[in-house]
Amino acid sequence: MNVLLEHINGPKDLKTLTVPQLDELAAEIRSFLIEKLSVTGGHLAPNLGVVELTLAMHYLFDSPTDKFIYDVGHQSYVHKILTGRKDQFDTLRQYKGLCGFVKRSESEHDVWEAGHSSTSLSAAMGMALARDLKGETNKVVAVIGDGALTGGMALEALNHIGHEKKNLMVILNDNEMSIAPNVGALHHYLSKIRTDRHYQKAKEELNQFLKKIPAIGGKLSKTAERLKDSVKYLLVSGILFEQFGFTYFGPVDGHDIPQLLEVLEQAKNAAGPVMVHVVTTKGKGYSPAEADSHKWHGISPYKIESGQVLKAVGPPMYTEVFSEALIDLAKEDNRIVAVTPAMPGGSGLLKFAELFPGRMIDVGIAEQHAATLCAAMAMEGLKPVYAVYSTFLQRAYDQVVHDICRQNLNVIFAIDRAGFVGPDGETHHGVYDIAYLRHVPNMVLMMPKDENELRRMMKTAVDYNDGPIAIRYPRVNGVGVEIEKEMVPIPIGSWETVREGDSSVILAIGPMVAVAEEAAEQLKREGQSVRIVNARFVKPLDEAMLLQLAKEGLSVIVLEEGSEQGGLGSAILEFYSQRGISGLNIRIIGVPDVFVEHGSIKEQRQETGLTAERVCNELRALKPVLRQRANGTA
Amino acid sequence: MNVLLEHINGPKDLKTLTVPQLDELAAEIRSFLIEKLSVTGGHLAPNLGVVELTLAMHYLFDSPTDKFIYDVGHQSYVHKILTGRKDQFDTLRQYKGLCGFVKRSESEHDVWEAGHSSTSLSAAMGMALARDLKGETNKVVAVIGDGALTGGMALEALNHIGHEKKNLMVILNDNEMSIAPNVGALHHYLSKIRTDRHYQKAKEELNQFLKKIPAIGGKLSKTAERLKDSVKYLLVSGILFEQFGFTYFGPVDGHDIPQLLEVLEQAKNAAGPVMVHVVTTKGKGYSPAEADSHKWHGISPYKIESGQVLKAVGPPMYTEVFSEALIDLAKEDNRIVAVTPAMPGGSGLLKFAELFPGRMIDVGIAEQHAATLCAAMAMEGLKPVYAVYSTFLQRAYDQVVHDICRQNLNVIFAIDRAGFVGPDGETHHGVYDIAYLRHVPNMVLMMPKDENELRRMMKTAVDYNDGPIAIRYPRVNGVGVEIEKEMVPIPIGSWETVREGDSSVILAIGPMVAVAEEAAEQLKREGQSVRIVNARFVKPLDEAMLLQLAKEGLSVIVLEEGSEQGGLGSAILEFYSQRGISGLNIRIIGVPDVFVEHGSIKEQRQETGLTAERVCNELRALKPVLRQRANGTA
Repeated sequence: MNVLLEHINGPKDLKTLTVPQLDELAAEIRSFLIEKLSVTGGHLAPNLGVVELTLAMHYLFDSPTDKFIYDVGHQSYVHKILTGRKDQFDTLRQYKGLCGFVKRSESEHDVWEAGHSSTSLSAAMGMALARDLKGETNKVVAVIGDGALTGGMALEALNHIGHEKKNLMVILNDNEMSIAPNVGALHHYLSKIRTDRHYQKAKEELNQFLKKIPAIGGKLSKTAERLKDSVKYLLVSGILFEQFGFTYFGPVDGHDIPQLLEVLEQAKNAAGPVMVHVVTTKGKGYSPAEADSHKWHGISPYKIESGQVLKAVGPPMYTEVFSEALIDLAKEDNRIVAVTPAMPGGSGLLKFAELFPGRMIDVGIAEQHAATLCAAMAMEGLKPVYAVYSTFLQRAYDQVVHDICRQNLNVIFAIDRAGFVGPDGETHHGVYDIAYLRHVPNMVLMMPKDENELRRMMKTAVDYNDGPIAIRYPRVNGVGVEIEKEMVPIPIGSWETVREGDSSVILAIGPMVAVAEEAAEQLKREGQSVRIVNARFVKPLDEAMLLQLAKEGLSVIVLEEGSEQGGLGSAILEFYSQRGISGLNIRIIGVPDVFVEHGSIKEQRQETGLTAERVCNELRALKPVLRQRANGTA
Repeated sequence: MNVLLEHINGPKDLKTLTVPQLDELAAEIRSFLIEKLSVTGGHLAPNLGVVELTLAMHYLFDSPTDKFIYDVGHQSYVHKILTGRKDQFDTLRQYKGLCGFVKRSESEHDVWEAGHSSTSLSAAMGMALARDLKGETNKVVAVIGDGALTGGMALEALNHIGHEKKNLMVILNDNEMSIAPNVGALHHYLSKIRTDRHYQKAKEELNQFLKKIPAIGGKLSKTAERLKDSVKYLLVSGILFEQFGFTYFGPVDGHDIPQLLEVLEQAKNAAGPVMVHVVTTKGKGYSPAEADSHKWHGISPYKIESGQVLKAVGPPMYTEVFSEALIDLAKEDNRIVAVTPAMPGGSGLLKFAELFPGRMIDVGIAEQHAATLCAAMAMEGLKPVYAVYSTFLQRAYDQVVHDICRQNLNVIFAIDRAGFVGPDGETHHGVYDIAYLRHVPNMVLMMPKDENELRRMMKTAVDYNDGPIAIRYPRVNGVGVEIEKEMVPIPIGSWETVREGDSSVILAIGPMVAVAEEAAEQLKREGQSVRIVNARFVKPLDEAMLLQLAKEGLSVIVLEEGSEQGGLGSAILEFYSQRGISGLNIRIIGVPDVFVEHGSIKEQRQETGLTAERVCNELRALKPVLRQRANGTA
């Protein structure tokens, strides 16, 4: 089958092939990807889109001397195949297996890691600056999608690159579809370059026209020359990028290897920053993926022939519960608007958008803008719901502090993917949101233990009129409770005891409540009576309950799927310290101070000790009750 | 003197004036500003630049029904004068006095607060969306400088605005000088529009030329018409903004009231997003400020006639100490490069830039890009020093996590303005950096107690090769120690006992060490012997010393000018909890969970209890020594 591919163990092997052989190899790589990912799942559509492009890059350039920087990095599978890692694809995105993104520890050809969007241009510029300062001559090539280009930092970088005029190449992988359909003027502009024949035609007409000018007279021909420059500039090239100081090449058919080689060769030898505009089709060569590249962006295992995706059965994901609750609430309250930074599908807003046209605002990859947009809408009396992944909200930290919390505005944060996220790994975990939100004044922060609590928290958030309020929920299935249609709000700052006990207490949030239950069941068999409190408000704390616990002198385990540094446990320690209460035994079990690699969520919890077993061990080691009560000055 | 101004108590009073009277009023306002700010200090140059613009806005629009959104907000003084606050200018930027930025609590005309750059377009878009959803018809006008336009979120917003086509107006206040000379392609573009007469001339020539076309024949005239559209588009309007979907007006002379009124009136009635390009001169009308608008951006009190700035004498600011140390180090080590997001002056990099051309990189207002740029340079073996204010580094939180710390790169953070900043107030305090950096794996975070320790920390940072390392230092004068030329590195994670004592201990950082000394002196007079530890590493902690303190059972005060939530104190509580050590009396004195308004740093410390008096009171209340030693399982 893989006649050519089996002999490709590095970029060098590629360079001996003829151009027709590259085409054959492209076909082999496509089959390889479609087959391998049908078992492991992964980012199929983006990688099928860049087969020829990646081949052309490795054919023309010399990696790793020349640096390839892949924006986000989910489109690096072909690069991995060509750089000696094809045999590891059975372990893709699995624990200790091949990473789904660029990974420096895997290969010298992986020179820049990402996961979040829009970093590649800054990285390329940094590498170009360093190269020039060191007096080296290697090429730097960034590959960025049209969607990622709308992210603020990419535009900051474009601006800087255009100014400095360093030699570097940006390959704009324009597939007209990032994760969701792109939003924004930049996208409109790219579509225009690509599809509007007016530009090509006007260019031809202009040339025809100008040829006749000299006949009119010398005076005019001088103007004509100048016009020619200006108009050529307008028509032939990518004005926007030229405005930013790039030399623009394209658009090029990203599936036509001879054309790619020709233009890349040309661009490679140009001085200063160059932009090569490559038009690709996401999912190219696999019809189900071509037909719905949105769905096939990141995909679970599937049947190759039918394209049928194999889905695990189970209770609804929290995302779906959020989605339904938001719709229920929005029917009753037309102040509610939903805002997403390019994740309408992932965040569960597609149905909402259908039901409430004009009330779902997709701003593109623009987390910062989204946050401040919400602030302004809240200022005008609306109830914006910012639906965003925990890891991506990191991009808007300053806007959360400066625009939303400082002005104390009624913005609702629906923070999805809080906790471990599984196969996307270390760039995508939502384990810092508690630590980066808890210290911001005016913020209320909640996490539900089950589906109904998420619904109730949604209602709580909509009813709340005293400032920003956030709900974090995990990337897992709910626990399977029957959905209660009515959403009864929860008093702000109130925890609930979900299991009685008097030998020790576990304060847990979100899916950790179930882990606590498991531990308590085990310890019950050993004669301990463990209390469990659902500490559903991370901020404000349930101070009355904490004071009560101190009086009882119970040993405390705080169990949270979030950073141990600055998290819920930390808040509890601060509270007792502030009240002058010492002498309590308190242990925090959370995510330790390391980055946790890809795998299943279960494996990630195992690795970091977020398990019932660990809780049991800790509780066995703790004195169950402090006979001597805690010292308290409060 | 202020014949007209004394009768202006709100925008309504303005509307009765004639255009020549507006010019007179402009002159009065200028004198008013120059006089008032000579006593209080403040953002003189930016406000002198927008006198006519602000007058024209209030003359034509109806604030507060129409919403004025000032980017950053430091150019809102004229707006404040015109909206009933002129009598409060003696208290400008002082404690409980008039805020130096837009402040909603001051006036109904203040509808959007800022302090950080580049938020105004997102705010305007949010207000326009809300207006349309609510079926209202007010105007929304954002005023943004050319510098602020390079910030990523402004570009994200431009992109979204261009797509949605809502009615809103952006006034581009192009003064060719934000805080530092602008960097980047966007700036180059703006200069071109403004200064290059080629555009105007070519436009005229084109029109002349096209008039003659019909004589050639029908076939060509059709092409000519199309060309006319395209070329007009190129020449007449701001291509870049048109590309982004705006209707462009300008450039307009921002000091010519009739011209301003004419163009704003025209723009006001256009549909969809409009961009009015207004060219202003920073410092207009006051020659010292016109001559050096950089220096006069934000200024201390000065003598009006001479323009001589009244400077307090005292030891060097920490910024200056950083500046000198960096130069000393860079002489020895050519891997060192300095990066600033538009603050070369404020961050003390001007002299460095002179001495090491090419090694100081000003990226413009682009904190995110700057961070990732540093990451890439570090990846290539350089030692980038990211010089940034604590409050602005908030913008790059995600890049710190995702690009720098996750890849564990040798980036040095020089975090200036850590702690309270005084008159700039709540948007500018550097009180969260510990809380948002401490939980990020691989980060090392230090704070010096004096000038020499800052120098030593710089050397420590340059010598450190195990990942990112940050030094935070305050916006105050050093303590006045004699500078030691040699910079001896400090062992990572080592604290130092700066005062012996055995009744209790204060763990303090930065300028709080001096506050602790003051408290200890007082308590000494009362018979207490207070130990002081300079806890100069916030991360990693000096674990050996903490264990020793636990053994001694001393009561502990943690004293830090940073958020009490998630700060150094929190780290110490976490450490003891993790080691199973309970029973210690630990109190954290830090910045409480509120936003702290403008005033002097002394007043801000007073208000929040960061004082020797408070420390004394806390220590008097604490049991000096726990007779019964702390429980420890470690």
